Amino acid sequence: MARTLSMIENARDDRVRSLLTHLYPHTGQSLIVGITGSPGSGKSTLVDRLARFYKQSAKKVGIIAVDPTSPFSGGALLGDRVRMQALSTDPAIFIRSMATRGRMGGLSESVSDALIVLEAGGYEVLIIETVGVGQDEVDVVRTAQVTAVVLVPGMGDEIQSIKAGIMEIGDVFVINKADRPDTSRTEQELRSALSLATRPDGWDPPIVKTVATLGDGTGELTEALTAYHQFSVKDGLPRERKLELCRQRLVEMVRDNVAERILSQIPSADFESYAEKLANRETDPYTLVDLLLEQSGLGKKLR
Amino acid sequence: MARTLSMIENARDDRVRSLLTHLYPHTGQSLIVGITGSPGSGKSTLVDRLARFYKQSAKKVGIIAVDPTSPFSGGALLGDRVRMQALSTDPAIFIRSMATRGRMGGLSESVSDALIVLEAGGYEVLIIETVGVGQDEVDVVRTAQVTAVVLVPGMGDEIQSIKAGIMEIGDVFVINKADRPDTSRTEQELRSALSLATRPDGWDPPIVKTVATLGDGTGELTEALTAYHQFSVKDGLPRERKLELCRQRLVEMVRDNVAERILSQIPSADFESYAEKLANRETDPYTLVDLLLEQSGLGKKLR
Repeated sequence: MARTLSMIENARDDRVRSLLTHLYPHTGQSLIVGITGSPGSGKSTLVDRLARFYKQSAKKVGIIAVDPTSPFSGGALLGDRVRMQALSTDPAIFIRSMATRGRMGGLSESVSDALIVLEAGGYEVLIIETVGVGQDEVDVVRTAQVTAVVLVPGMGDEIQSIKAGIMEIGDVFVINKADRPDTSRTEQELRSALSLATRPDGWDPPIVKTVATLGDGTGELTEALTAYHQFSVKDGLPRERKLELCRQRLVEMVRDNVAERILSQIPSADFESYAEKLANRETDPYTLVDLLLEQSGLGKKLR
Repeated sequence: MARTLSMIENARDDRVRSLLTHLYPHTGQSLIVGITGSPGSGKSTLVDRLARFYKQSAKKVGIIAVDPTSPFSGGALLGDRVRMQALSTDPAIFIRSMATRGRMGGLSESVSDALIVLEAGGYEVLIIETVGVGQDEVDVVRTAQVTAVVLVPGMGDEIQSIKAGIMEIGDVFVINKADRPDTSRTEQELRSALSLATRPDGWDPPIVKTVATLGDGTGELTEALTAYHQFSVKDGLPRERKLELCRQRLVEMVRDNVAERILSQIPSADFESYAEKLANRETDPYTLVDLLLEQSGLGKKLR
């Protein structure tokens, strides 16, 4: 599994495309859960608890932990190696840390491909873990069937400022570290923030309190996740929303695929000289891209 | 200015490309500041203070506030309308809220284009405001010359978990709401987290304490931002890092440009039927993208 995922992350040649095409029919049955929350919300511990809980029902569980990329090193910023080592001894829980490298392909695209590999590999529950509330998180959330937003007590300010936002992203809300004194105040603030918005699907997101370090509330959380999943399967995602997701997926894939194929036709010495010209401000980026497309033989075709 | 920015956000036709090409030579002189921090860190208030401070030296100031996009409505999640109304009465401070819409173009690309328009329009100081520490933030940070990370007292956990990350992103650190009791503990934790990492450029990021609601510390913050800017201009960005930024910019632009041009050649009824096939799981996405490229006349060319 790890080798296949690495292959997919590192190259998108015909072999990879054909592999994904063959795996695709074997997908569509797994439960895909998104967990998002700020650094420090304890969401990694919560994800571990969830994974172990699902595993009790003899399910193969996969975790995809999405890390922001360092602007300097290009590596993952938040990769929690200690945790990964702890879980990696359990063969029924597969964990993979993913980061966008900036070079090729969007993050949501890489996650979608990894989900196909894991689903086809028999993983019945897949958990995607992301940090914070950025565009990336929103894109990744789009690939999950049910999403939980993790908060901690004392985040009243945060709730204030993301009122509309978290309401739309979260199907379930978790107040983790719920043994802290200001839990009930945070719950109250969250409830009143949630009451201000209405979701297009009519779902009323529940609030679950957990203490992930002790394992408290894990069962309730899985029940809440299942409840929303059953609700959404029964009523079906609104057709228009599902179509919109598919449109975006196609656009994203065209972006990735075409750029990769075009750039592979530019000798790297030439690409380097384009980058040099831009770095020296000799030529503006718009003209350089036109030159680049021209050289790839697609300039005229694409006018 | 607002009309030009809207034009650029809504279409990337030849007219827009030619406009940006003509504006580009008039850029490269403005100070571009990135401000990033979690929701609730008071970073919007801080950005307002900064903008008013810079304006005192008779400078035209532009603010680009980056909002995550709602997965449901496609609109901006966190747009702070109240604030925008307050500032928009001041003609010397231009504020623009931007969100990625998912359809076309990456966020960093849109921000880069908007910066060119504002710089050419005579804005000497440009402030980019982003939320949280996601991939997007990292990408946007790449376009700023100096970046401040805003924290609030009592975020010890957060500092723990993003140790390596914030060190690499922040050229300056701000502890906002520094009239709170646990300010000095947070400062201590931050300092020890910073001491663990070394930056490739040898810069030692200062910590500035502010109370944005009262305007305390705004002067010190601008001094710290200027100090880093002078440091980086004097020593120059390491050549390799600058080249890497240019490479990424070119790849990103190829992605956006080509996808847009290809998709514009697909009749929307056909595109819609591809999306339908994907929504119904009739065809896998990889095959659909191949069909799409084939139809655009580029399939063979790109093999």
